[in-house]
Amino acid sequence: METNTINITEKFKLFSDHWSPKVIAEMNDYQFKLAKVEGEFVWHAHEESDETFIIIDGELTIEFRDKSVHLKKGEMCVVPKGVEHKPVAKSECQIMLIEPKGVVNTGDAGGEKTAENDVWI
Amino acid sequence: METNTINITEKFKLFSDHWSPKVIAEMNDYQFKLAKVEGEFVWHAHEESDETFIIIDGELTIEFRDKSVHLKKGEMCVVPKGVEHKPVAKSECQIMLIEPKGVVNTGDAGGEKTAENDVWI
Repeated sequence: METNTINITEKFKLFSDHWSPKVIAEMNDYQFKLAKVEGEFVWHAHEESDETFIIIDGELTIEFRDKSVHLKKGEMCVVPKGVEHKPVAKSECQIMLIEPKGVVNTGDAGGEKTAENDVWI
Repeated sequence: METNTINITEKFKLFSDHWSPKVIAEMNDYQFKLAKVEGEFVWHAHEESDETFIIIDGELTIEFRDKSVHLKKGEMCVVPKGVEHKPVAKSECQIMLIEPKGVVNTGDAGGEKTAENDVWI
């Protein structure tokens, strides 16, 4: 039985690369991932699933084709499946992502920012 | 398209009752719920699903039949499906629960602490 305490702040100390989500926990077929982000990501969508962003520290803007959502520490947003979005962080921001196992960070867009999937810390 | 900013701290200001989870967001068929808890809950299990606890403020102990897990602000724990557990908080604690829509707080145990399900704030 796996019922470990997972300390989110401590987990963030274990990596420094940007736009490369690390898995810290699994619930059924969903994963909790941490990422450090800075700068502009790529426009993409996840055709199969919604995607949840929780801001652990810093600020993140999620651009949509018709608006932007600005998120601060302690705020969250669910991006509906199939909706194009582009995360942007002026300075380094720490986020938690929750989504089904197997979801790739760049979704349908691919490209050089595509991170290795299912990397645990 | 629903892509609102959800402020977790602000949502906690909207209710004061204990052991009565409030839904703040939905991702596919999963829900994010907030609860204020204090004292001892009942022993129960969720036969159909894992259940994720994230501590937003305060401290929570999750008792299992063979051990206890003590969680502080910024820590999380996934309780596997079917595993009996009893949350206990010496003083008021603010938690986020993530689990599939339809999961009842008292699981298989029922009783007077069973809260109305799917209550949004």
